[in-house]
Amino acid sequence: MVNETQHTCSASSSSKSDGGSSSGSESSKDNSRCSTPVLDADRHERLREKMRRRQEAGDKWFSLEFFPPRTANAAVNLISRFDRMGAGGPLFIDVTWHPAGDPGSDKETSSMIIANTAVNYCGLETILHMTCCNQTKDDITGHLQKAKRLGLKNIMALRGDPAGEEWEEEVDGFNYAVDLVKHIRNEFDDYFDICVAGYPKGHPEAESYEADLRHLKEKVFAGADFIITQLFFRPETFLKFMKDCQAIGITCPIIPGIFPIQGYHSLRQLVKLSKLEVPQEIKDVIEPIKDNDAAIRNYGVELAVSMCRELLDSGMVHGLHFYTLNREVATTEVLKRLGIWKEDPRRPLPWAVSAHPKRRVEDVRPIFWASRPKSYIYRTQEWDDFPNGRWGNSSSPAFGELKDYYLFYLKSKSPREELLKMWGEELTGEESVFEVFTCYITGEPNKNGYKVTCMPWNDDPLATETNLLKDQLEKVNRRGILTINSQPNINGKPSTDPIVGWGPSGGYVFQKAYLEFFASSEIVTALLKVLKKYELRVNYHIVNVQGQNITNAPDLQPNAVTWGIFPGREIIQPTVVDPVSFLYWKDEAFALWIEQWAKLYEEESPSRMIIQYIHDNYYLVNLVDNDFPLENCLWQVVDDTFELLN
Amino acid sequence: MVNETQHTCSASSSSKSDGGSSSGSESSKDNSRCSTPVLDADRHERLREKMRRRQEAGDKWFSLEFFPPRTANAAVNLISRFDRMGAGGPLFIDVTWHPAGDPGSDKETSSMIIANTAVNYCGLETILHMTCCNQTKDDITGHLQKAKRLGLKNIMALRGDPAGEEWEEEVDGFNYAVDLVKHIRNEFDDYFDICVAGYPKGHPEAESYEADLRHLKEKVFAGADFIITQLFFRPETFLKFMKDCQAIGITCPIIPGIFPIQGYHSLRQLVKLSKLEVPQEIKDVIEPIKDNDAAIRNYGVELAVSMCRELLDSGMVHGLHFYTLNREVATTEVLKRLGIWKEDPRRPLPWAVSAHPKRRVEDVRPIFWASRPKSYIYRTQEWDDFPNGRWGNSSSPAFGELKDYYLFYLKSKSPREELLKMWGEELTGEESVFEVFTCYITGEPNKNGYKVTCMPWNDDPLATETNLLKDQLEKVNRRGILTINSQPNINGKPSTDPIVGWGPSGGYVFQKAYLEFFASSEIVTALLKVLKKYELRVNYHIVNVQGQNITNAPDLQPNAVTWGIFPGREIIQPTVVDPVSFLYWKDEAFALWIEQWAKLYEEESPSRMIIQYIHDNYYLVNLVDNDFPLENCLWQVVDDTFELLN
Repeated sequence: MVNETQHTCSASSSSKSDGGSSSGSESSKDNSRCSTPVLDADRHERLREKMRRRQEAGDKWFSLEFFPPRTANAAVNLISRFDRMGAGGPLFIDVTWHPAGDPGSDKETSSMIIANTAVNYCGLETILHMTCCNQTKDDITGHLQKAKRLGLKNIMALRGDPAGEEWEEEVDGFNYAVDLVKHIRNEFDDYFDICVAGYPKGHPEAESYEADLRHLKEKVFAGADFIITQLFFRPETFLKFMKDCQAIGITCPIIPGIFPIQGYHSLRQLVKLSKLEVPQEIKDVIEPIKDNDAAIRNYGVELAVSMCRELLDSGMVHGLHFYTLNREVATTEVLKRLGIWKEDPRRPLPWAVSAHPKRRVEDVRPIFWASRPKSYIYRTQEWDDFPNGRWGNSSSPAFGELKDYYLFYLKSKSPREELLKMWGEELTGEESVFEVFTCYITGEPNKNGYKVTCMPWNDDPLATETNLLKDQLEKVNRRGILTINSQPNINGKPSTDPIVGWGPSGGYVFQKAYLEFFASSEIVTALLKVLKKYELRVNYHIVNVQGQNITNAPDLQPNAVTWGIFPGREIIQPTVVDPVSFLYWKDEAFALWIEQWAKLYEEESPSRMIIQYIHDNYYLVNLVDNDFPLENCLWQVVDDTFELLN
Repeated sequence: MVNETQHTCSASSSSKSDGGSSSGSESSKDNSRCSTPVLDADRHERLREKMRRRQEAGDKWFSLEFFPPRTANAAVNLISRFDRMGAGGPLFIDVTWHPAGDPGSDKETSSMIIANTAVNYCGLETILHMTCCNQTKDDITGHLQKAKRLGLKNIMALRGDPAGEEWEEEVDGFNYAVDLVKHIRNEFDDYFDICVAGYPKGHPEAESYEADLRHLKEKVFAGADFIITQLFFRPETFLKFMKDCQAIGITCPIIPGIFPIQGYHSLRQLVKLSKLEVPQEIKDVIEPIKDNDAAIRNYGVELAVSMCRELLDSGMVHGLHFYTLNREVATTEVLKRLGIWKEDPRRPLPWAVSAHPKRRVEDVRPIFWASRPKSYIYRTQEWDDFPNGRWGNSSSPAFGELKDYYLFYLKSKSPREELLKMWGEELTGEESVFEVFTCYITGEPNKNGYKVTCMPWNDDPLATETNLLKDQLEKVNRRGILTINSQPNINGKPSTDPIVGWGPSGGYVFQKAYLEFFASSEIVTALLKVLKKYELRVNYHIVNVQGQNITNAPDLQPNAVTWGIFPGREIIQPTVVDPVSFLYWKDEAFALWIEQWAKLYEEESPSRMIIQYIHDNYYLVNLVDNDFPLENCLWQVVDDTFELLN
């Protein structure tokens, strides 16, 4: 989520070629402007270029620091937090590195895997921290290679805490962060953007403040692109540090590290670790209220806001880096009060874009994974090329099998007990399944009084857009048309429309009506009879778990169901109904009945057998109404089907 | 022009995958249909497949034979005839081969170059005849290689007339057509579709009718794909021949050669060459009217229509091959009366598609060459890839320079004297140039009483679509906005619309309003001031002959200005305004002032100097109104400009 730059405008976007100067009374400068927001720039620029562009545009930005979680459950929660805080538009996030926690491993709680998830599955520009002290060159190179392979593009190069008190410099070893910076530049040339740490009060172990500044300069001259500072308590501390850096020739961006005080104990712990001293005026406020968490947090927010305002007003600071301690409330509050939390409802594309450099041109996806984008990214992670402009370009998409339902970033956010409350402790028949689908659509509590806020095919409540179809969806689900995906037809709404809009402003977005559902073979038999009346208008694909497939799609061509027309651009068609990938989606859609729902119940229990029956016997159906300028006929198709059945 | 197949439907277009059978009460057959006309099939199939598909669909078709012209002027006329007769939808045309006329050379009158022009520049499926008698293996291989290189895919393999009376078989030489068939299959495998000649009355030199049938069978078994017959005068001649062929195991298509009698002398000459005998009943009619060309032609048309009807009604004939003698009237008349001339206003794309196999995926072009498609094809003939889906895919288009204005397929159809009458024997100032542009738009005669039916940038009268804009165009041309290309905005008209429609039926087509013109620097200065008011709405590119370039297009991206949405398809966007290719078009657009207009006049004559002045000082401007759902604002932009100037 990096879409706050939609409003910025790069001065270099006017085009002049052949070296000629412009004519008439107009100077070239008069004609320099960007008519189209530089929406895509964020996907193609490296982090240091994004920083420069924001600075040139006078745009203030923020970034967020997280540490890796301790447990798998905490990882699931952290990923949800990435999604929520990503919505505010951080320029990047970073993930810290704790040598004791096996940070480069494949464990779901490792720094490497959390950073991988942030980049690939949450679409966040991410910096991975890395320390070098007490590690071999091979270990470090291995970590860096792995990071590159996973699509990570930014490293925060740190020394790390020496193990034990008796640390001694190793000859030819990695003794300081500068060694790591040099190593990265030697081995990986310009591939990574490198960040280093700055200490506004000087590093606690440095001989002096001045000596520490010289070390910082060494790190920058060895190849670092920008600096993030240690936390500090007074704005003047940072501003002095910044001037001192500039005075000795450090010209790269220096980003102040902001630590909103969130509690008495976390403050004490951090201060202890960082060997900083808390100013007396802060101690004076905190000590008397140390047992009142809310009061301390309020004070911390107040303090951070006022310090950040002073930094931004100085004109020397363009971005703010927040030490979140993996918490949301305080940081979000500070950002909102500063006015730099930009929850822009506008999206560059209707689906969330992955930040892996391999995927930077990707702009078409099948509609089927609309509610499971992380699964789509997972199943296509081995692709070397991504469709750009046309789905048809990617002629034989080989989807990875989805056996890994346990992967933390694909798992339901809700624990088993909650799912049972929503989906029924005990099912009595197919109708009780219909009831669950209906409650999910309506938002009404089920008969036991619980709201159904997620389904196996969608871990979130109904999308705002789907709400447009709520009444019709309720009606059909009640009767056994178990909908899992749908969109209304749209005939040229402004691209800034808060519900269905996406892409640069000044454009128009379109959709063909889409409906996807499970239904019994009895319903499907009637439906097929009805569909004959709609032969020229409705395209359908109907498939069961064995792969029996009925369709009227010509030549296995994809059908574009979402597209946008923008000023000065080619057409963008981000969503298609593709007959080939539908068969891969089918495997996943049917498997979710078993993996997420049936397995909640004991083997051979009636509830489990009901779900198994549906899995074995129902069909998965998708319908597209090609006549997008007319009223959606898919509801009529369903009505006709029920009429035929009666 | 092969679009009559838009109505056909291939039984193989229904999609069934995973090998499953269909479900419910529906048999797979019930669901086999093509919802989208197989528009593209003609671009991707080889000739023999097209023939098979037409036959399966019960579609009758025709083809046209031409001989190479004698002079360069005749070549210009023949190409115009290809364009006009191509509009009727022949399945293919063929070009004969005359060893005495240097048929494989690069001369503009050679068989090779005429066939090349038909395929590449007229978009016609083409068969090149080739004879083998008295030629070396190397010569023949050289011709075939050249044909392949030029994009020709079909060869009619003939023996040719032996030189001199004393012909003897050469050992290991090419003595019969079957030797050429074998050679093509040996050297080029399955690349070419091969046609051979059949003689319904037996070849005049054959020992017997039966012996000739055996030779024909040899040719087919050596690899020929279908047979075209020599002309004949009675339908029963052909039907007997066809049955005799089938009886000895010839199963490939056999296409009757139809010769509509067009005149007494041409009939006599053809009969002499082919050693055929004209039946007495025909002689009886013709002899008395032999000096009345019109009467003979009427009789010839009558005779051909009745014979063709009988052939088609027999159920054995699916296509008819016409010996046109390079004339239009009689053949067109026969075809129209048979109801197989199908001037379908529907086009697969808004521009005419080239038939070169390299270009079969091409579906995007810059709008600039809309009226000069042959020049566009010429300038991109060296491209190995053509843009498909997006113009952006072809990232650095290198256009060939257009120095070859003399090339017959790029030349004006009108001779110099006619151009002078239209464009002025003597120009008196810029205003007389404005007058020429205005007359071209209005269709009114100029002050000397001549209609202006072409311009250097457009060799044809105004397109029907442009007529929609006629009143406004007239007004602005009169005042020195010299328009050379424009299109109205279209917000979702049916793809079957007779004026702006294209592509498969059931779709919707869209356009952004476009206006391209030359104007003085005074006008451009005012225009640029006005355009500021339209910054967010109108994209512009303004360039002079030196390449001074003013634009507000972001990032040099193309702007899609024509697109279509179809059932079961991805979006097609066949026309873009591309800032990069505009600079290549600019060279051509400015050069046409000099090459086509100024050079009509003596050097240093006032008329020539006026055109030279415009060439040196005017700007070429293009404007796109991005808000296609609203009323076109470009006329307002021009009005505002004139208002500012007053």
